[in-house]
Amino acid sequence: MTTRDDAPPPRRDPWELPDVSDLVIGVLGGTGDQGRGLAYRLARAGQQVIIGSRSADRARAAAEELGHGVQGEENAACASRSDVVIVAVPWDGHARTLTALRTELAGKLVVDCVNPLGFDKRGAYPIVPEEGSAAQQAAALLPDSRVTAAFHHLSAVLLQNPEIERIDTDVMVLGEDRDDCATVQAVAQLIPGMRGVFAGRLRNAHQVEALVANLISVNRRYKAHAGIRLTNI
Amino acid sequence: MTTRDDAPPPRRDPWELPDVSDLVIGVLGGTGDQGRGLAYRLARAGQQVIIGSRSADRARAAAEELGHGVQGEENAACASRSDVVIVAVPWDGHARTLTALRTELAGKLVVDCVNPLGFDKRGAYPIVPEEGSAAQQAAALLPDSRVTAAFHHLSAVLLQNPEIERIDTDVMVLGEDRDDCATVQAVAQLIPGMRGVFAGRLRNAHQVEALVANLISVNRRYKAHAGIRLTNI
Repeated sequence: MTTRDDAPPPRRDPWELPDVSDLVIGVLGGTGDQGRGLAYRLARAGQQVIIGSRSADRARAAAEELGHGVQGEENAACASRSDVVIVAVPWDGHARTLTALRTELAGKLVVDCVNPLGFDKRGAYPIVPEEGSAAQQAAALLPDSRVTAAFHHLSAVLLQNPEIERIDTDVMVLGEDRDDCATVQAVAQLIPGMRGVFAGRLRNAHQVEALVANLISVNRRYKAHAGIRLTNI
Repeated sequence: MTTRDDAPPPRRDPWELPDVSDLVIGVLGGTGDQGRGLAYRLARAGQQVIIGSRSADRARAAAEELGHGVQGEENAACASRSDVVIVAVPWDGHARTLTALRTELAGKLVVDCVNPLGFDKRGAYPIVPEEGSAAQQAAALLPDSRVTAAFHHLSAVLLQNPEIERIDTDVMVLGEDRDDCATVQAVAQLIPGMRGVFAGRLRNAHQVEALVANLISVNRRYKAHAGIRLTNI
């Protein structure tokens, strides 16, 4: 006999995402092109955003340029004051920056969007970090944080162009914890045109990061700022 | 002074692709799901298709089921009789199959669509071949062939469903030679809804192959048969 208590819990709707409007979003590397672009889009969507830099002065100057209430702080203060911290630093400063911020990032939801790439005369190619991916390196260096990966495939040019209202692209979100991924998906969806799509665990982050090398080839061939949509979902 | 002869050649339109209607398309591993699906779609679009298998009888039986003039042959005859040969064998037979067909594949345009993946209880994860990717392994094993990579992200379920008319997805095409890639792009575009998009050299094939692990995660979460579109091109 099946009683009501025996029934399996209803399947969770993968598109049902939490309200993230109260979360403060920090962007480490917020004075770089990708960081500025993300900060601009999230702030323009009404979110409280703090950009971090090694220099508090540079962070404040960049924040003032971006407008929309963006604040600037030295990296450590940016991490401490934020609920969700996007890591948008250059790959060659990735390990050093995160190691230095381990205490400030404890308990935070960290979103790594770093693409480890090398460049030579034939174009871009992926670098394989010892840990497997930038995101896995972040997870290894930040054992007290909740590490996810997302925002790899966005064009910094499009993000920063104030005349563009919508950016029609999907944001692949990777992570180990379903609620953490859902939060990051919801953050992505603050930006008009974007969907946040769960796309696997951190062990599958390398190819998502490395795919930027292909997008660079696409952009060169088609004179474009290509993004990615997942079809049929 | 600039004379007409000094002017650079006009930039080639990346969307201008050759007529491939006369090319015979072979599909090694044509009795598997991916191979059957591709053979079906290309034959239904009017192309001459030969599927190959280790067993000529199995190949012929599968060809008859597919209809649309598809023929079946043992792998070696399939390779010899085709102009473009799609490699859709399972990863664990990839090196063995290609090594055995080196002579028959000499001079042919080879299109590798194999995704080296492992599976465990947490899902799919990429396997990294010694050569870097399945496509680079094919290039190493087939020095007399023109090796490209494409057709990684197509759902075999959608390909094989005769009720589906269009498959709205992009086919990332990778390779070293522009004309070879253009031919493969044109083959992809035979299938309604598909675009063939150049997406880099073979050294950037691994992440394209491995991304199937992420699509499997997406499909599981969203109960979907996800594909990929490149936006803004």
